[in-house]
Formats: sequence, C-alpha cells, structure tokens
Amino acid sequence: MTTLTTTQAADLVAANRILVRQGVLDAFGHVSARTAPGADTFWLSRNLAPGSVTASDLLEHDLDGHTRDPRRTYLERFIHAEIYRRRPDVMAVVHSHSPSVVPFSVVGTGLRPVLHMAGFLGGRAIPVFEISDVAGDASDLLITSSPLGAALAGTLGDSPVALMRGHGSVAVGGSLQEAVYRAVYTEANAHAQATALALGQPRYLSAGEAAAANATISGQAVRAWDVWHEQVRPDIPAGDLAPGPGQE
Amino acid sequence: MTTLTTTQAADLVAANRILVRQGVLDAFGHVSARTAPGADTFWLSRNLAPGSVTASDLLEHDLDGHTRDPRRTYLERFIHAEIYRRRPDVMAVVHSHSPSVVPFSVVGTGLRPVLHMAGFLGGRAIPVFEISDVAGDASDLLITSSPLGAALAGTLGDSPVALMRGHGSVAVGGSLQEAVYRAVYTEANAHAQATALALGQPRYLSAGEAAAANATISGQAVRAWDVWHEQVRPDIPAGDLAPGPGQE
Amino acid sequence: MTTLTTTQAADLVAANRILVRQGVLDAFGHVSARTAPGADTFWLSRNLAPGSVTASDLLEHDLDGHTRDPRRTYLERFIHAEIYRRRPDVMAVVHSHSPSVVPFSVVGTGLRPVLHMAGFLGGRAIPVFEISDVAGDASDLLITSSPLGAALAGTLGDSPVALMRGHGSVAVGGSLQEAVYRAVYTEANAHAQATALALGQPRYLSAGEAAAANATISGQAVRAWDVWHEQVRPDIPAGDLAPGPGQE
Amino acid sequence: MTTLTTTQAADLVAANRILVRQGVLDAFGHVSARTAPGADTFWLSRNLAPGSVTASDLLEHDLDGHTRDPRRTYLERFIHAEIYRRRPDVMAVVHSHSPSVVPFSVVGTGLRPVLHMAGFLGGRAIPVFEISDVAGDASDLLITSSPLGAALAGTLGDSPVALMRGHGSVAVGGSLQEAVYRAVYTEANAHAQATALALGQPRYLSAGEAAAANATISGQAVRAWDVWHEQVRPDIPAGDLAPGPGQE
Repeated sequence: MTTLTTTQAADLVAANRILVRQGVLDAFGHVSARTAPGADTFWLSRNLAPGSVTASDLLEHDLDGHTRDPRRTYLERFIHAEIYRRRPDVMAVVHSHSPSVVPFSVVGTGLRPVLHMAGFLGGRAIPVFEISDVAGDASDLLITSSPLGAALAGTLGDSPVALMRGHGSVAVGGSLQEAVYRAVYTEANAHAQATALALGQPRYLSAGEAAAANATISGQAVRAWDVWHEQVRPDIPAGDLAPGPGQE
Repeated sequence: MTTLTTTQAADLVAANRILVRQGVLDAFGHVSARTAPGADTFWLSRNLAPGSVTASDLLEHDLDGHTRDPRRTYLERFIHAEIYRRRPDVMAVVHSHSPSVVPFSVVGTGLRPVLHMAGFLGGRAIPVFEISDVAGDASDLLITSSPLGAALAGTLGDSPVALMRGHGSVAVGGSLQEAVYRAVYTEANAHAQATALALGQPRYLSAGEAAAANATISGQAVRAWDVWHEQVRPDIPAGDLAPGPGQE
Repeated sequence: MTTLTTTQAADLVAANRILVRQGVLDAFGHVSARTAPGADTFWLSRNLAPGSVTASDLLEHDLDGHTRDPRRTYLERFIHAEIYRRRPDVMAVVHSHSPSVVPFSVVGTGLRPVLHMAGFLGGRAIPVFEISDVAGDASDLLITSSPLGAALAGTLGDSPVALMRGHGSVAVGGSLQEAVYRAVYTEANAHAQATALALGQPRYLSAGEAAAANATISGQAVRAWDVWHEQVRPDIPAGDLAPGPGQE
Repeated sequence: MTTLTTTQAADLVAANRILVRQGVLDAFGHVSARTAPGADTFWLSRNLAPGSVTASDLLEHDLDGHTRDPRRTYLERFIHAEIYRRRPDVMAVVHSHSPSVVPFSVVGTGLRPVLHMAGFLGGRAIPVFEISDVAGDASDLLITSSPLGAALAGTLGDSPVALMRGHGSVAVGGSLQEAVYRAVYTEANAHAQATALALGQPRYLSAGEAAAANATISGQAVRAWDVWHEQVRPDIPAGDLAPGPGQE
C-alpha cells in the first residue's frame, strides 16, 4: 500500500477535469497515477464520469485490479494495472476515446508526428492493439481482465501511446503531467495529420527530430499543465482536499 | 390515457435540453417518451424549440397524433406515433437533424459502427428511409401523416436508428436514457466514420463485437445521462416541476 | 424617407447579434431591412462590427447608398441598395463571409440543398458572382459602387442566395426573420454538402422537394428566430430601445 | 533601450489574450512588439502561457535575444529578434501553431488566399521554412539561436507570413493590430483553402486582387481589433496597467 498526498490527490482530480475540458475525455475514459516508480498499487477514481471526480473518489488499486473499497470500480481498470506491471517507469496512464484518434485506430494509416509538440510519438507509426487477435471476433472490445490488459501492455511495449482498434487509445508518462500532455497532443496531432493527409503526402518528423523535439519540449510542458489547471480550478469543489481513505 | 409522474416529466424536459447541449437538436427536432411498453399514448412537447421546453409544455398524444390540448403540436408527431404503434418495446424516440448524420442520409455509404460506444448500431448498415418511394419526388420530406409515419417505422423495422434522406434520423430506446444516448453516439460515430473514410477503408465492428459492446455498454450509459443532466440543470427553470394537465 | 418603429429597430439589432452568435458574421458582414416592400430607403448600421450594433447606430440609406447622417458607413452598402432596387419583394439582406460558404465560391461545385431545412436553395445550383467579369482581374473584390452592386443584384436575379467568389455571399428574404434564417441554413447546408461530397455523390433535393420543403418550413422558421433571439437578449444593452434619429 | 507606454503595454497584453481567444495561440506561441520602426529592442513576455500574460511580464529584449531581467525567457525569442533585425518595417511578430496552418507546413500545397480578407497573403504561395536545410535532420525544430532565427527571417523575406515545417508559422505587421489580424486570418484562410481543395480546384485571388483587397481591408482591420479587444477585456486583471520595469 501507498499513501496519496493531498497534492497528489489534487493533481489527479485536476487531471480528470483537465482532460474533459481539453476534449480528450467526455463521460467516459479515465486517468490514473502511482506514487513511486515500480510501486505495486495505483490510484484511480471509482466508476464515475471524469468531470465529476473529487479526491474522496480516488481508490487505491493493486495490479490485479482489486481495491479494499466496496464502491464500484471501472470495468477497464486492467488497462492501468497491466501497464504499471510491465512498465516500472510509467507513473500515470490516460485511457480515452478522443475523437480524432479513434479514426486512426480503424484504418491502416499509421499515426505519426506532424508537429514538434508531438515529438514524443517518435519516428515510427504508433502501435495499434487489435483485440480480436486475443479475444476473438465477438468481444465487446473492452479490457475487462488481467490477460487482456497484459496483451494491450504488450502491444504498447516501450511506446508512449498505443491505439486500440474501434475503441480509443492509451497514453502514458513518467509523471501525471506528462501523461496528460501526451493525451492532449496525441489528439491534436491526429487532427493535424488527418488534415494534412487530405492535402497531400505529409513530411513526418524524422526519428531524430522527434527525439530532439521531445527532449526540448519536455521542459516546457509544465506551462501547459499550469494553464489547463487554472482553467478547471473554479469547477473543483472547495474543501475537496479533505483526504479520502488511505490518503493523508 | 396515462399519467406522467413528476420524475418522468422532469426527465423528458431534461432530455430535450441535453440533446440541445450535446449538439443533436437545435431549434428543431424533438424527443418523446411513453410511460409503459405498448401504451397507446406518448408524451411530446407542444410545438416549441426543444431548448425552451418545460413540464407544462408536455402533451399526451395518441397513436393517431391527436391531443386533447388546443395548443399547436409538432407537424411530425406521426414519426413518434407510428414507431410506438409498431414497436411495443420502444419507450422513447428522438428525431434530429444532427450535422454529421445528415450527410450519410444522402450518399450510398452505409452508417456503421467504428467505435465500441456505438455498438448498438449493429453489424449491418443502418437503414435509410427514402421518402420519394412513398410520397413521390416532390414531397416536403416531412413526416406529416400517419401513412408516412408508418412507412418510416417500416424502414426502421427492429433497428435502433434509421436515417431519413435529406432530413435527419430517428433513434429509439427501451428507456428515455437509452434513446438519448443512442442519438448522441449516432452523431459521434458518424463524425468518426466520415473521418476514417477520408483516411482509408475502416474496419467496422463485427456483428459479434457490436452486440457484445452494446450489451456491456448498456450498463454504463447511465453515467453519461447523469453527467449530461448535471450540465443542463442550471438552465431548467426552478419550479418547473409543477405538473401540467394530465400529469401528477 | 421612412420611419423605423421601436420593434423594427430592436429586431434589426437582434438580427446583427443573432448572426454573430450563429457563426455567420464575425467582426465583418452586415444585415439590413426596409420598412415596406419597394420602399426606396433601407436601414443599416453605421460602419461597426455587427456584434456591437445598437439601435442608435441604425442609419437610413437611400438606394444610391447615401445617408443624412455624418457617421461613417459600410463600404459595401451598395450590396443592399442595389438588391432593394432590383427586388421590390426583398425586405432584408444579409451579407456574410461564413466559413463553409466561402469554399463553394471558389470552386466549380454548385451549392445545392442536401437538407430539407435548406429547401429555399431550390432545385438548381446557387449563382456565383464573378466580380472579375465586371471589375477586371485586379479589383479588391468589394462591392463599393452602385454599378458593382447592380451587377451582383443581376447575378442574384430571383434567387434567395448568391455566392460572391473569394468573398462570401448574400441571402435575402421577404422578412428580416426569413433572411436571417436563410443565412444560417445556407451555412449549415454548405457544411453538410461538403461532408457528403467527401463520402460520395449526394442526392440533392429535387426541384419539387425543395419548393415543397420551403413552403412548409417557412411556417416553422419563426421558431428558430425566437430561440436565437432569446439567446442574444442578455447581450443587448438595457435602454437600447431609445429611438435614434428618424426612428420613432 | 526604449520605453513602453502604458497604452502599448496594455495593447500587447490584449494581443496575447486575443490570440488565445481567437484560437491562434494556446498554452504556447508568443507575440511581440517594438516601439519604433528599426528600434534595436523589442518587447515580449517572459516565459509564460500567453493567456496569463500581464503588463509586468513584458520584458525588453535586444536583437541578440538578451534581457536585463533575470526571469526566464522564451526559448524561441530569436524568431522575433532576427525578424526585427532584418525587417525595419516590422513593428510586431506573432509566432503560433494554429491548427489549420500546421498541415500546410508539411505538404507541398502552397498556402494562398481564397478570401479577400486574406489578400495580405499576396499572389504567390507563402514561403515554408525547412529547418533541416540549416539544422540537419535531427533538430528539435525550434528556433533557439540567432543563426536559426536569421535563416527563418531569410525565408520570410518581405512576406507577411512564413510557415515553419512541422511547427507553425510567423505573421508580421506594420503595427501590433496588423500582425494580430494577419495571424487570425492566416488561420481562417488555411481552413477555407483546405475545405475548398477537398471540393475541387480553387480559384485563388490574383496578385492584383490580393494587393487591392489588402489595401482596402487595411483600413477596416481596426474594426476586428476593437471587437476582439472588447471580448478579452473582462479577463485582464484590474490594476494590470501599473507599469513594469522599463515601462512608464
């Protein structure tokens, strides 16, 4: 077990609301965080629309997707659990159905960076998880078990983002702020790339450009978090910082 | 005759405003509900823009489209009447002109699910009602009589959604919440499908995936209704819950 | 000379703000009205962004584009003047640069109705005014004189709408409410038609359908005006109804 | 050294917020101004999201990108510095990643005017800065030095706008209002041009039309600034006009 500090809880609440405000999440999707690299638990809201999450809704989950709290959890908590299990470096995970990304999940066109702000996407096409390879061709497309989560985590590999066919995507980061930044700019890049593809053949960032842009932009991304946080601050209930169970 | 409870009236008012807020309705279109499966009346606002509907505007209509109220009714109340007549299972109907759906109504491209949230669309292309087959090639495209409503209901068959060429669509549900959910995600899926078609040949959900996704997501859809309801609550006049004629 | 009643002035102020709110006008474009069919003057704001217009900004213009008021007038007042001169039936004119319409003005694709709400567009492609035919190939594309206005009015002919190449469009109506309705739905139809053309070959409304839909919808359009008016009401300064010069 | 008047500071603060509100800037991008043609310093915010800039954040930079202020500056201040060095006529510079412009930066399609409001774009395709020509194929795409800024300024030449491949664009003006206007309408034109290209082959403004439209519209552009300024006024902190260091 770990303990979520008041600041960490407030940041995770803010991340939920930022992702709604930025159009990445709507009534569905979720974002989680853990308190230390390699920790064997993570924090995720109970089953709730992300725009409604407050600190007392955040529940500690173990890597099998269990909680000690009796409240209802997300069906797809195994996305988070299995990515944390496989990737000790990952500190936060966003799962979303953002509108410009879904179309890339159902066609052969690889998602690749057309703008330097999305250099984190790297020099190769982003992997696409084809659930029918593991769950057959009549699944509900949801990641509702540890084996399905492990298969998705396998497709993700060491990538920052993976698409999920007919469903959405996951974005991970070495911090909560980084995962949120990546989810927002994966959507922005998908929109720009689709527009560019309608005009002609885009010149994508080279592998070297993507790596260099990612290294530089990492130091600036906190500027985005600060602005986005400011925008959602009025929506977060005052007194929300009272710790929930297992939080200090 | 049936009686609309205060809760049912409040939900139908909320549904009108949710559909406006979600971009499915604007100054036009309408949503109705009935109080029991197979009931021979249904409730629908008088002729009013959906964003302005309050409880006292809800009128009981019979399946011939008649009301006892002298106030002006929607020209297209026969859409609702004939769908309820043919489909005892249907508890609510949304008729809309939502912007991403209309284009699919005028081309041969079938509307099909590209995202699991729209699994209710099923494994085949959604039917398109071609009004000129029954009304000739100089009609006003509106469903202004019982025979036209019956023809549309025939095209709908047992589908959850039907497109209407050059006009819009209908979405039905086993509850008001389900019909609203389907109308919102039919629009979302149409937008995603059009974007995907511009990129390449989409892989649609298989029939089995669509059915499984629909079964699972049904249990989650109330989460969307709750969020959407919260968003429109400030716009609904206080004291709106005073029952109108025939409501308790 | 004519006199604008307080109600007519309030409606013209509202029309300016409605068209901004609906995304048809931004800082540019204008809307005018006259008080009787065939009247030889019309009312149009002084040179001002439409979202800022109040009743005291409305100036009476004659058909040569002159006013008695010393304040600065719109460069393109001749659009209005010459349409009123040629079309005694027209009671209001909207000139706009709305975003989905401009693209149709620069390509050979005819703007045609794909939705019944735009039946007023009729059964043939909307005419496009090619200014270089009368002003040569180095004009500023603006209608800044009576002869240019007359040429545009000639292209408009008896149509409800004309496109202006590389510039925008005009929409006219037998009432202010009708002209506003047509401007809004010309934009909506252009967006839907462009989306449909990306999917396949659209089936446009037949001439008979367009005429029939227009006849029916005309009786419903006031519903849109009422909703739109309600939305802009809070933005109009209280006490704005004090008559300006020449108003009662 | 120069001194920024209270009015100039207020205008530069407003320009930051206008560009955010108009969708040209988000958490990134920047706008600068200088106080006289050919002046060897310019004013630019410290490293801050543009929607948060206040007068006390504005710092005087010299043409080597240095400030006397210890606060952190933008990495890409060299964009501004080198354009001011090369172009004595330029009084303001906007650097943005606006969404419709980025796609044109990565394909061969030249950005050209399809609407008269963008006549400033002129009769030829807007130049595109290909950073790999000077920084190799593994740069971070950012303009983080004087030589890179000088190369970009060279590509810009005497154009009002240059695109930056995989990154964004710069727009310059003879006044702050003009640069802001151009940044907003470069985005609007890119959106309209992409839509037109999906429909067919656009007829672009001829060189003569572009020049004439630009000459006429210049006199009207202040109308846009006034409206946009009014929209952002409520967001600017009261008391923001207290001069910062080096301001009077």
